Amino acid sequence: MQEREISKAVIKRLPRYYRYLGELLEHKVERISSNELSDRMQVTASQIRQDLNNFGGFGQQGYGYNVKYLYNEIGKILGLDKTYNMIIIGAGHLGQAIANYVKFEKRGFRIIGIFDTNPDLEGTTIRGIQIMTDDKLPAFLNSHDIDIATLTLPKTGAEEIAPLLVKGGVKAIWNFAHTDLDLPSDIVVENVHLSESLMQLSYNINRKDKKK
Amino acid sequence: MQEREISKAVIKRLPRYYRYLGELLEHKVERISSNELSDRMQVTASQIRQDLNNFGGFGQQGYGYNVKYLYNEIGKILGLDKTYNMIIIGAGHLGQAIANYVKFEKRGFRIIGIFDTNPDLEGTTIRGIQIMTDDKLPAFLNSHDIDIATLTLPKTGAEEIAPLLVKGGVKAIWNFAHTDLDLPSDIVVENVHLSESLMQLSYNINRKDKKK
Repeated sequence: MQEREISKAVIKRLPRYYRYLGELLEHKVERISSNELSDRMQVTASQIRQDLNNFGGFGQQGYGYNVKYLYNEIGKILGLDKTYNMIIIGAGHLGQAIANYVKFEKRGFRIIGIFDTNPDLEGTTIRGIQIMTDDKLPAFLNSHDIDIATLTLPKTGAEEIAPLLVKGGVKAIWNFAHTDLDLPSDIVVENVHLSESLMQLSYNINRKDKKK
Repeated sequence: MQEREISKAVIKRLPRYYRYLGELLEHKVERISSNELSDRMQVTASQIRQDLNNFGGFGQQGYGYNVKYLYNEIGKILGLDKTYNMIIIGAGHLGQAIANYVKFEKRGFRIIGIFDTNPDLEGTTIRGIQIMTDDKLPAFLNSHDIDIATLTLPKTGAEEIAPLLVKGGVKAIWNFAHTDLDLPSDIVVENVHLSESLMQLSYNINRKDKKK
């Protein structure tokens, strides 16, 4: 595998390639041409060829792509050949939704602890994973290597807890709280701001209405 | 307000401006320079000036931006001066998380119905909003103008229900199902693919590990 800087736009498309290839695998498709993949994904065939060439080009003229090989290679690029220890902070509906999503587990994201401020939840479990109160977090971080902390709690709580996570050696934060956390540059952050997504939707509804 | 095509990149940044300006308003800040806003948002001041110039430029040399005016104008651009009727399809944890998020309501997104396949939920409510079984959906769409359908159900369910929504006159789909829906081009779609977001995170963890 070549090690060179790949553009953000390409990286953003990789999970989608991975999903489509996974579906093809489920349907026992062994190989696919860039044209067929293009039809399915509604991306131009030349875009697909260009994207995949970034990784040394998995295709062969006249044969197309080997689905399984390409799926595995993209998985490796995305880091899906490894496992990650994950915790969830905030056991509200959103935290529970993520804790219950078994597909993450299958992809190597292992949830090993859930934290919440509510003492009534202490000792209860979700899919066998224990819920602990927030005050247990520093000791937990001391005794476990945590790769990813998922923040499904309100903004102020997220801002308070972020420095603890950094101190505790967490590598990455998957942030659902409605704020941009102030973090050292070596911490990886991925924000999921649901209200902002909804605002894009309302913008687009209005843009279409105006065109009519 | 000028009516011209604004780039997608600018539109993507608008909800974030809106959020920061909203926070300034809460703190009773009346005006702000592009430099101050730049420090807070970690976007260059020239980027801010350029972005806001797309809408005719709300700033005045030496004065900066009037926070309230800018907040309201960006709100209008995003369509937040209107109200939207929304339904949620899938009353699992994710659907419940969204139904319970009162901030959406405040911004004009009114949830007026929740649907689920599970007959045991029929007649129960979330924040006073009734849960109905899926078979009631076509009649409900006939008697209500629905702007947005939120899909928080598994992939196959989402694919089955999408044509019903289109037929029922729904304008936009906020899709959390792990699939790209095949929809007519006049339907607005905003996808929130959580697994893809998590894959970006694992990609970035590995990229940083390699640099070390």
